[in-house]
Amino acid sequence: MTQVSETRAARRSWQDIRDEIHSRVLSRRYKPGDKLPRDEDIAEELGCARSTVQRAMQDLNDAGIVERKRKSGTQVRPDPVTRATLDIPITRVEVEARGARYGYQMLARGHEMTPPPVASAFGLSAPEEMLHIEALHLADDAPFILEDRWVSLGTCPEIVDVDLSVQSANEWLVMHKPYDLMDLRFYAVNANGEMAARLNVSEGAALLVIERSTWIGKRPITTVRSVTTPGYQLLTGS
Amino acid sequence: MTQVSETRAARRSWQDIRDEIHSRVLSRRYKPGDKLPRDEDIAEELGCARSTVQRAMQDLNDAGIVERKRKSGTQVRPDPVTRATLDIPITRVEVEARGARYGYQMLARGHEMTPPPVASAFGLSAPEEMLHIEALHLADDAPFILEDRWVSLGTCPEIVDVDLSVQSANEWLVMHKPYDLMDLRFYAVNANGEMAARLNVSEGAALLVIERSTWIGKRPITTVRSVTTPGYQLLTGS
Repeated sequence: MTQVSETRAARRSWQDIRDEIHSRVLSRRYKPGDKLPRDEDIAEELGCARSTVQRAMQDLNDAGIVERKRKSGTQVRPDPVTRATLDIPITRVEVEARGARYGYQMLARGHEMTPPPVASAFGLSAPEEMLHIEALHLADDAPFILEDRWVSLGTCPEIVDVDLSVQSANEWLVMHKPYDLMDLRFYAVNANGEMAARLNVSEGAALLVIERSTWIGKRPITTVRSVTTPGYQLLTGS
Repeated sequence: MTQVSETRAARRSWQDIRDEIHSRVLSRRYKPGDKLPRDEDIAEELGCARSTVQRAMQDLNDAGIVERKRKSGTQVRPDPVTRATLDIPITRVEVEARGARYGYQMLARGHEMTPPPVASAFGLSAPEEMLHIEALHLADDAPFILEDRWVSLGTCPEIVDVDLSVQSANEWLVMHKPYDLMDLRFYAVNANGEMAARLNVSEGAALLVIERSTWIGKRPITTVRSVTTPGYQLLTGS
């Protein structure tokens, strides 16, 4: 409270207000499930505009610390979650960030009808002809990620003219086909015979798989299953 | 542009402005690496306050779509990343959300000196005595997650009085020990003999591991390695 009184005279940014409210949650002055005072009352107590409190609360809401509801106001999240932001870069950038030389091999490319798991990942009611690409990303000439990708010819007709033996579909799509909806899933698999051969690992090795599907305006763009190599870790933090 | 002219008369929210700029990025009117017009110029073009543009840009920056820099203004991210927000709930809540009955077994509890990997996860320069807990979370009586956890007695002295055979340390810590810093990592392992026995899976099965370490004011709270069961998927999206 001393701090509040001392700084009340100064103009307070929404970040200051956010930090003050966050510190009250951290110190358990506001506990999980507690209803917070009204924005107006916090604004008056902390000597700032109501819009400043609103901006701060928006940020705390986005961070999963409080929950804002139109009718019932703001409460400290009753069931706190561990919330993290995850950035997955283009694979070339990821390899180069590790100080390794990036390499890329297209293994197969063709037009095929989507098999059921792919149609299901996109939520298609019927199979569609799409571009199917298998490719290997390398770090210092060693296999790094094996990707199995399907690209919609409806949203990406230009891709048929791209030389995907030189530029990866990963990179081309990220640069040319922004999405507005994405599904992302992580799981572990035991390497099957094909994965083991492609990635030069023992059959049965535990591999982290990252699956990603993207859409624009509800139309599918691409779905990709990226199989990583042993020791691969996905890191994030707050 | 028609839309802009039609709506210029109405008062536009920061969300409207954000969506307009985002749609220009999606349509490649603003391309990766492009410098955006100054906030003032966008405000004038779109007929809104400069602070509304600033709020919109902040949101697009947080979403990884543009990059704001104090000196050089705003640009479309030149190396787009796949950015996702990941929420990891309390394990009990996760099990119940699947419609299963939650169960919990404490397997071991004791005060021990931190082994090197734990000291290293926390960034400790010397080993410390901490509370070490091994526990099993169950879904409908079947093993769901095996957790190996270390809790700092410095930041969590009260935990020695908590009956962790009834309430999981996961739940107690989430409710009582908020953190301000977190490290999160995901990787795959082949089940070793102990994991296989505890989780009732075959030795060698591929398992997704989630490791999490938290701090408050740079002091360690807890580090936990959660080994999931075959088929477990972590999902997220945008």
